[in-house]
Amino acid sequence: MEPTIRFSDKEILLAHGSGGKASRRLIEGLIVPILSSPELERLNDAATVKVGSDDVVVTTDSFVVSPRVFSGGSIGELAVNGTLNDLAVSGAEPIAITLAMILEAGLSTQDLTHELLAIAKSARDAGIEIVTGDTKVVEHGKADGIFITTTGIGRMHQNAQLSVERARPGDRVLLSGPIGDHGITVLLARGEIDLQADELVSDTRSVWPFINTLLDTFGAEVKWIRDPTRGGLATTLNEFATAAELQVLIDEENVVINPPVRGACEVLGLDPFHIANEGQFVAIISDKVAAHAESLLKSMPGGHNARLIGSVTEGSVPIVLCKTAYGVTRVLDMLSGDPLPRIC
Amino acid sequence: MEPTIRFSDKEILLAHGSGGKASRRLIEGLIVPILSSPELERLNDAATVKVGSDDVVVTTDSFVVSPRVFSGGSIGELAVNGTLNDLAVSGAEPIAITLAMILEAGLSTQDLTHELLAIAKSARDAGIEIVTGDTKVVEHGKADGIFITTTGIGRMHQNAQLSVERARPGDRVLLSGPIGDHGITVLLARGEIDLQADELVSDTRSVWPFINTLLDTFGAEVKWIRDPTRGGLATTLNEFATAAELQVLIDEENVVINPPVRGACEVLGLDPFHIANEGQFVAIISDKVAAHAESLLKSMPGGHNARLIGSVTEGSVPIVLCKTAYGVTRVLDMLSGDPLPRIC
Repeated sequence: MEPTIRFSDKEILLAHGSGGKASRRLIEGLIVPILSSPELERLNDAATVKVGSDDVVVTTDSFVVSPRVFSGGSIGELAVNGTLNDLAVSGAEPIAITLAMILEAGLSTQDLTHELLAIAKSARDAGIEIVTGDTKVVEHGKADGIFITTTGIGRMHQNAQLSVERARPGDRVLLSGPIGDHGITVLLARGEIDLQADELVSDTRSVWPFINTLLDTFGAEVKWIRDPTRGGLATTLNEFATAAELQVLIDEENVVINPPVRGACEVLGLDPFHIANEGQFVAIISDKVAAHAESLLKSMPGGHNARLIGSVTEGSVPIVLCKTAYGVTRVLDMLSGDPLPRIC
Repeated sequence: MEPTIRFSDKEILLAHGSGGKASRRLIEGLIVPILSSPELERLNDAATVKVGSDDVVVTTDSFVVSPRVFSGGSIGELAVNGTLNDLAVSGAEPIAITLAMILEAGLSTQDLTHELLAIAKSARDAGIEIVTGDTKVVEHGKADGIFITTTGIGRMHQNAQLSVERARPGDRVLLSGPIGDHGITVLLARGEIDLQADELVSDTRSVWPFINTLLDTFGAEVKWIRDPTRGGLATTLNEFATAAELQVLIDEENVVINPPVRGACEVLGLDPFHIANEGQFVAIISDKVAAHAESLLKSMPGGHNARLIGSVTEGSVPIVLCKTAYGVTRVLDMLSGDPLPRIC
């Protein structure tokens, strides 16, 4: 059967890698129809594969962040934690990771060593092993220093019952911390914009300890989790609303946005809800355990900015609404275009 | 503990991606010491990871072949079969594959579609599913069209007992077909050399059907298998000799080399034993079943050029020797440098 292709763009643009609307058109209109795999069509960040009697959770991501090194992290660290987080938001405990590197000829051994050390440290911190890998080299000018692709292998947490179908009106939206730190940090690290924010660092980290605690404690009361990376929190919540066929109402006052992020976004005309995060997650959780979940996260190291930011509501059109500090309600749309390419 | 680094090159060169001596120095001198993982230190093409009660076999590879399309295949097809072959030579039946693409802005949708169709067909032919993926886009000039990283998930064949420690003097060396077809095909596709060989096509294919048959039929009599890709057959046999602490004696007359490959190598001063293959494997197998194994492979579609090409011998220095048609014995060394970068 011929695949039904619904992608009419003649060439690939940066926006197709943004994680927003253009990415979805490429993925849903071209890639998924041609590859026609039932597991792929679920568009989850991770897939579940039966091996013998066990379910194995697997996820893969390429990292092309520019610049390679930024305040609070670097591509090597991101390549480990980003992939662990895709396992984590699927409810899977990380077991192992694979590492494939594409190096540009002329890359200094010192720079490569920096990233290998970052990879080793992140893996060690997460208690996992890099089990296999591959290294390719391309001519100078045919890549950009280092591209890294990691694949994570994990095992589903025994209490995890994460599925968008289990979300109900009345469920609460729990956010793990401030938004926009990673995207704005990387943007400023490029030095193209005359802004300084010395206190701002990327939020990049593994979120598994938080999610593990939530699943241990609340099990099936946790309905759905995602990490709002490319496309930001607004895109992630829109993906939830569309898949769940429900609405989401966010109270902007409860969303923590660090002053340097708020300032940079105002100056640059960006919406912090569209800026990428690398160490945050958003969970849809039953109302009856929501307050307990928030206080539990707050009690954990690095969790003090966790907040209940809104609710799932009934509605005929899947949409994300945001009540601003001025009492106005605005529509939080998915990212379209790409204000900040190559942030991961 | 500080890792012991034995890599003194100041920068990364194309030769570090060749699969030969320079690659080994980079991997064994820098990457493996820093990442310090016991599974990685085995330097196998695939790792075995315990998930629940089952052993999962996992392998990852990046593909950067240039040009993307060549006689008999393309990068998309290679990205599936190359990874399936890394599972296969580990004795693992493929179950699923993941797909991460790095696209260069400006890539035509037509070219991307060509590769997606090639990926879909190769996966379908192998009876496996692309279960999850990722797509990144980098600026024009920061990549080279399409880079693909695939990760294969497999399950060990129940009869597989592949381990270099099980090789013994007297074992035979079984090669699945002609050598050098892939590397020379890609080289000629670049159009930089004024040679034509219209009948030459890449050998790229999945070798799992052959290996599955060998393991079904001969089980533990099959001691070790590898696919002689980057660095060619000579590099693979040297890796075996070094790991096994044994010698290998090859009878050159039994190695099938297609005339266009022989001709191109003579003109260009290349050794066909150093040229990459993408659809071949070499197996170390007990003498008592070797003739049967050869005839069994020959009876399979695409297996008619399978040959017993030599033997494992005792010796104090691990080395690969090759008896030529003229009765002279030469040393077959690992590839050093890189005559043909980016062949996979």
